[in-house]
Amino acid sequence: MTRLSPVPFVDVRLTGDFWSERLNTVLDRTIPSQHAKLEEMTILASLRLPQPPPPLVIKRHANGFSVQVFWDSDVGKWIEAASYALAHRRDATIEAQIEAIIDDLAAAQAPDGYLNCWYLCREPENRWTNLRDNHELYNAGHLLEGAVAYFQTTGRRRLLDIMERYLEHIRGQFGTGPGQRRGYCGHPEIEMALIKLYRVTGDAKALALASYFVDERGASPQYFDEEARARGADPADFTQKTHEYSQSHMPVRQQTKVVGHAVRAMYLYAAMADLAALTDDPSLQSACEVLWDDLMLTKVYVTGGLGPSASNEGFTRDYDLPNATAYAETCAAVALVFWAQRMLHLDMDGRYGDMMETALFNGALVGLSRDGTGYFYANPLESDGTPHRWHWHDCPCCTMNVSRLVASVAGYMVSASDDTLAFHLYGGIETTQTLGGVATRVRETSRYPFDGDIAITIDPATPADFTLLLRIPGWCDGASLRVNGADVPVVAHNGYAALTRRWQAGDRVALSLPMVAERIHAHPLVTNNAGRVALRRGPLVYCVEEADHDAPVQMLRLPPDAPLSATQSPLFGGIVTLTSPARRYGNGSIPLYFVKDPDMTATPLTAIPYYLWANRGAGSMLVWVPET
Amino acid sequence: MTRLSPVPFVDVRLTGDFWSERLNTVLDRTIPSQHAKLEEMTILASLRLPQPPPPLVIKRHANGFSVQVFWDSDVGKWIEAASYALAHRRDATIEAQIEAIIDDLAAAQAPDGYLNCWYLCREPENRWTNLRDNHELYNAGHLLEGAVAYFQTTGRRRLLDIMERYLEHIRGQFGTGPGQRRGYCGHPEIEMALIKLYRVTGDAKALALASYFVDERGASPQYFDEEARARGADPADFTQKTHEYSQSHMPVRQQTKVVGHAVRAMYLYAAMADLAALTDDPSLQSACEVLWDDLMLTKVYVTGGLGPSASNEGFTRDYDLPNATAYAETCAAVALVFWAQRMLHLDMDGRYGDMMETALFNGALVGLSRDGTGYFYANPLESDGTPHRWHWHDCPCCTMNVSRLVASVAGYMVSASDDTLAFHLYGGIETTQTLGGVATRVRETSRYPFDGDIAITIDPATPADFTLLLRIPGWCDGASLRVNGADVPVVAHNGYAALTRRWQAGDRVALSLPMVAERIHAHPLVTNNAGRVALRRGPLVYCVEEADHDAPVQMLRLPPDAPLSATQSPLFGGIVTLTSPARRYGNGSIPLYFVKDPDMTATPLTAIPYYLWANRGAGSMLVWVPET
Repeated sequence: MTRLSPVPFVDVRLTGDFWSERLNTVLDRTIPSQHAKLEEMTILASLRLPQPPPPLVIKRHANGFSVQVFWDSDVGKWIEAASYALAHRRDATIEAQIEAIIDDLAAAQAPDGYLNCWYLCREPENRWTNLRDNHELYNAGHLLEGAVAYFQTTGRRRLLDIMERYLEHIRGQFGTGPGQRRGYCGHPEIEMALIKLYRVTGDAKALALASYFVDERGASPQYFDEEARARGADPADFTQKTHEYSQSHMPVRQQTKVVGHAVRAMYLYAAMADLAALTDDPSLQSACEVLWDDLMLTKVYVTGGLGPSASNEGFTRDYDLPNATAYAETCAAVALVFWAQRMLHLDMDGRYGDMMETALFNGALVGLSRDGTGYFYANPLESDGTPHRWHWHDCPCCTMNVSRLVASVAGYMVSASDDTLAFHLYGGIETTQTLGGVATRVRETSRYPFDGDIAITIDPATPADFTLLLRIPGWCDGASLRVNGADVPVVAHNGYAALTRRWQAGDRVALSLPMVAERIHAHPLVTNNAGRVALRRGPLVYCVEEADHDAPVQMLRLPPDAPLSATQSPLFGGIVTLTSPARRYGNGSIPLYFVKDPDMTATPLTAIPYYLWANRGAGSMLVWVPET
Repeated sequence: MTRLSPVPFVDVRLTGDFWSERLNTVLDRTIPSQHAKLEEMTILASLRLPQPPPPLVIKRHANGFSVQVFWDSDVGKWIEAASYALAHRRDATIEAQIEAIIDDLAAAQAPDGYLNCWYLCREPENRWTNLRDNHELYNAGHLLEGAVAYFQTTGRRRLLDIMERYLEHIRGQFGTGPGQRRGYCGHPEIEMALIKLYRVTGDAKALALASYFVDERGASPQYFDEEARARGADPADFTQKTHEYSQSHMPVRQQTKVVGHAVRAMYLYAAMADLAALTDDPSLQSACEVLWDDLMLTKVYVTGGLGPSASNEGFTRDYDLPNATAYAETCAAVALVFWAQRMLHLDMDGRYGDMMETALFNGALVGLSRDGTGYFYANPLESDGTPHRWHWHDCPCCTMNVSRLVASVAGYMVSASDDTLAFHLYGGIETTQTLGGVATRVRETSRYPFDGDIAITIDPATPADFTLLLRIPGWCDGASLRVNGADVPVVAHNGYAALTRRWQAGDRVALSLPMVAERIHAHPLVTNNAGRVALRRGPLVYCVEEADHDAPVQMLRLPPDAPLSATQSPLFGGIVTLTSPARRYGNGSIPLYFVKDPDMTATPLTAIPYYLWANRGAGSMLVWVPET
């Protein structure tokens, strides 16, 4: 099979209820409120290079670092998220806000093309002297992603031109040529951005620069150490003490364990997968596959969250997946969606689709509140009611990561090549693709993720030969398929069922993916989950929340043999809840230790999708329910 | 009933196998090796006030503090432990070592009686300026406890005289009189020591000083804040940030929650209980009871360990009892034994005896290796095999706390008043007490803690009227009792069965305490123990250890209905193990998450007493076994 490519988000329209609700919330509430926050926090003002520089808004840590150094990236991510949203509904106010930002960036850009508002304003003499800590290329990457998205939605090139000039400057600085710095960013990001640019413009120089950054990473002598010495610092004197933190401890092709800061890891691996596919690089593909397996076998939460530890915002040891203290940063789950999608384009295997779906519907989506203006940075899988959603954060990375994912989700649902259209996710889309040489309108309707009955209509302008690939999720047993009313056996190869035929206007495909409420067990070395089960139905991981029970949910016990039912519920505008007869400890005094169980009372257990927790006030929550 | 008093350790001889083995190990291995370590670490040399002061052996923390400041206490505790041991078997070498230390202390003591080798050597101008951090009175307390014990064993007063001179100095410094400091120690300890002195000498001034320290604690204005201001420091600038850490956040009679550093808390509460009994103070008794209930209902490990957190070596929130990261410092369990014993003397209630027994046989005893030269500072209830016993520690407090407890355990087994002898623990003792006015020899023999059949013979010089109180442990159902072969109904009042009669020489009491292997459940809010059980038989909490299984013990599952058997085992010279048919995950690859259990194989589970873990090399360990 020829490799498939992502379908530009602008070419896919969301029509289903599930994503329409999220998308409209992002359009109506999230994007405007984020712009207001960028204004309020003076992040937008910082683009206008105020002189003298105002006092820092975000105090420096003890190590001298202020997260304010990556404010440019917040602006880039907001433009990106807004651009995806605008593809669904143009909005003059938002576009004017973007244009105003572009005015500021154009004015800020140095004559030599350099564009980083922190350095230009506060320490112009120190450009490119601390790639390890200061996010200089990361900022460029996020601005570039914003420029690409804005161009794709509006056709307006002005920001893209600014960024291409900046890239010319960067290209001059970095590389293996004489006088160039052999550096790369402490926080991978620009690599993915360059590949997006390449996909839109076909500019091979963008691909080459991304390859350079990936190939150079972790080379000896270690660049960050050299760079520290060059600025008179002790290379060992940095907060995280290990270059594993930024995945620059060894060349990427030698890396076999997922380590360090989770978001950095996912961004890097996503770029590696992209490059492996675009440059047909088997050594890079192999590295991606080894790292993928390591993550899947030992380091990912059942929600698709990842990175258990707050101290490095990242990975620790195998099977260390605590629930209450899970960091599982929203950005990391969003970034796992990025990586999984790129693995699909490297090797169309449903296991990548399964993980993309899990991370999207659970670990990522949980980061945005129902009303579109509240966020989680860390995503515990158990709560005593203490964590609350917040409306902004000193490090607001997650806010715009989740909004840009939701606003661009259409681009994750299908992929295409000349003769193939692959469905990874379902939930209601319309797209017109050239398949088998013929412009073909494809419509998919379903109540996914709450229902697995999926209807697809195929309308080629003229009869056309091509293949429709339908992902049969790993969670699904007993999928069935009909084409124009006739049963077709489901033969899934690597998780995808292929329908290859001459398609006619009006052809109808009906895919049924039975969704059964199931108990998930964890590997025994995930010791905190021993004797517990997570509840899943279809793509959704569920949780029990105090709002549906008259006690802390830690008091609940789910008998091993209690049946689970899926129930249509009016909650949250209509969702499927899972219910089961269960037991709970009484309200009386319970000793700290006891031989015989105190009286337990029968109680119904109600589970809601995990992504919806913490939208009904403070209260306890539990993903892994004790089974006794 | 009149209140009972502790029986001096010198008056009780250990005759049973269990404690004889531990005692001989302490005598033969622990005490000598600890002396060698005190020498090697230059702790003994520091008593000789070297001038100029040598460089610090233990580097200062970032906060300027070095644990070397309490080296005097290590010396005091070693003398105390050695003195207890010498009561069982005099040893000229050890006695000479103690005398040499006393020579040094005598030479070091200032003309005004002051005696703290850190301050005398390093900062003589700063005496009594930082009671919050620098353990000055704590050191005095431990030296005093050593002096009292050495006097009790040998009758030699020289160290006691030195310490009484030092106490005169301290008495001049501290109190509510004009010109006195209204201070008390950041680390309670001297209070208990003063009460021990009072019990031996009857000196009311010692009791009064202990009362002063307890009563003044937490008064407003906060002494440590005043003291910090007086030395020009910011009172808020200290590591722990809260006076809860040292239980000086409010007057002790107002304290209702167990907070802060666990050892400090236990030492304070032990002194409070002592004083409540000795001064008949109902408000102090009430505070003790409220704090006891708080600890028992929400904060103690099933092993009698306490203080889950390393960051404050102490308490956190209710029900926070993690297993793998349990701090549960050995010293804290030792100190809980102290407190529980003192609660018994305040109010003879078996619940205090139950906890004293649990903390002794489990949370405290685990701190000393089988060979008597290895230690645990922190005592996790689950291990992946990483923690090892160590042979010394920068802060060696636990080493001599566990040895002094083992060497003095005879003193915890019985209490007495004029007309009552109470057995709290069993395991083989001989003692002669004056009961009902008659010198009465009492011998108890048993294989406790492995067997509950207890034989007691009573030999009064002439027939005598008195009461024998026998603790019927809370874990025991179906106790039975015979006197001279005749059944006597067991009527336990507050956990003690009373036998009041005219005793004759040769009277025999047979107490049978059936020991059944049981599963213990934890309160549901101890979330990490949901779906898990701890195994207990009699006083012993058990654990499963990798040495008895061919896989990490985290792979084991104990079916809820599997029978537990108690088996005599040759391990460790003869112990009772618990065994059960169980299941384990196979050696094949197990996915991180799965719906249907991978194949599990039947396997026998073998549990050993928790106190014996980590004596057979590195390996995983688990107290709370998953039940599915």
